Amino acid sequence: MELLEKLNWRYAAKAMNGDVVPEEKIEVILEAASLAPTSSGLQPFEILLIKNPELKAKIRKISWNQSVVTDCSHLLVFAAWDTYTPERINKMFDLTNEVRGQTFEGWEKYRQQLLSTYPQQDAEENFHHAAKQAFISLTHAMVAAAVEGVDTTPIEGFDPAALDELLELKEKGLRSCVMLPLGYRDTEKDWLVKLPKVRKSRADLVTVIE
Amino acid sequence: MELLEKLNWRYAAKAMNGDVVPEEKIEVILEAASLAPTSSGLQPFEILLIKNPELKAKIRKISWNQSVVTDCSHLLVFAAWDTYTPERINKMFDLTNEVRGQTFEGWEKYRQQLLSTYPQQDAEENFHHAAKQAFISLTHAMVAAAVEGVDTTPIEGFDPAALDELLELKEKGLRSCVMLPLGYRDTEKDWLVKLPKVRKSRADLVTVIE
Repeated sequence: MELLEKLNWRYAAKAMNGDVVPEEKIEVILEAASLAPTSSGLQPFEILLIKNPELKAKIRKISWNQSVVTDCSHLLVFAAWDTYTPERINKMFDLTNEVRGQTFEGWEKYRQQLLSTYPQQDAEENFHHAAKQAFISLTHAMVAAAVEGVDTTPIEGFDPAALDELLELKEKGLRSCVMLPLGYRDTEKDWLVKLPKVRKSRADLVTVIE
Repeated sequence: MELLEKLNWRYAAKAMNGDVVPEEKIEVILEAASLAPTSSGLQPFEILLIKNPELKAKIRKISWNQSVVTDCSHLLVFAAWDTYTPERINKMFDLTNEVRGQTFEGWEKYRQQLLSTYPQQDAEENFHHAAKQAFISLTHAMVAAAVEGVDTTPIEGFDPAALDELLELKEKGLRSCVMLPLGYRDTEKDWLVKLPKVRKSRADLVTVIE
């Protein structure tokens, strides 16, 4: 596989044709999302995979009426933890010990370090930190989709409070941070698909310090 | 290429052996970072590519003494815009018009919409938004590295104020948000390399709404 070729093929599809993405491709995309690394391995987010047309229609209404929200095959919503709690931190550390079949002194010290800092921090700050981890997972999903020939559009343009209410996220201690429709580009209807990709120059992006 | 195989091979290397990553692989990684999609196409961050050993040693001191900071081949620092300004927004919209060789009414309306909202928002909120876009680029770089057989470790464990001062980022309106050492795992010295990857169950990660 030529990854760069796939990354060049990817673009933010502005129109999708309603075709259904096969379940085996969805599985690859979700597995990639799951394999994303996260700070301290906490995976501080959940993913909602929405196929229901009525629900997608409701979400479109609170997403600037973007057609891809209903014309996609599957809609992923990434919802980050609203804060770090001792329960959440302990659950991931306990799972790690369980999977590894042993405990490590250094790892337990690190658990205590997180327990004595994260839960005491400002919840908004913690949410932003968790959301950044969700963006790593989002990007894993997006790259896997491109490799599988599946189109995507990362969407931040929605009313997060309204979406949280619609999906009953607040009760779960979650806050929506980004959506990712999965589907197939409608090359007839999409104004963006024929336009060249725009990126700032390498010199504007990267500074080399020898 | 089997992407999932590469994503499984990837782990956060805790020890690197000092071997140098060839420039052609660095080029693929930077190109992938550049191809990352960002909100409104603004690419609100810059990347510093650090090879200088003395500078890496100074950064290690403000990064909990993590050995990969000095034992990596190249150290990437992702620095996000400290806020959105009219100049920064206009520069990207102007570049887009230049590359496309034309202007679009809808696009110009969208420019005005951003100009009338982003710069007026709280700078801290804007920085968090910009940093999330940097995390998409970080992840593109990390995935490309894995595909190229290059190890990485995303690092948030550093003193951002000290790093900003060391790299003179404040003067440029930038704030460091994450680092990515590129290099090769030291399988003898790394305690993590032999341990299994830990991820929460699919049921804990994904909720399907049919």
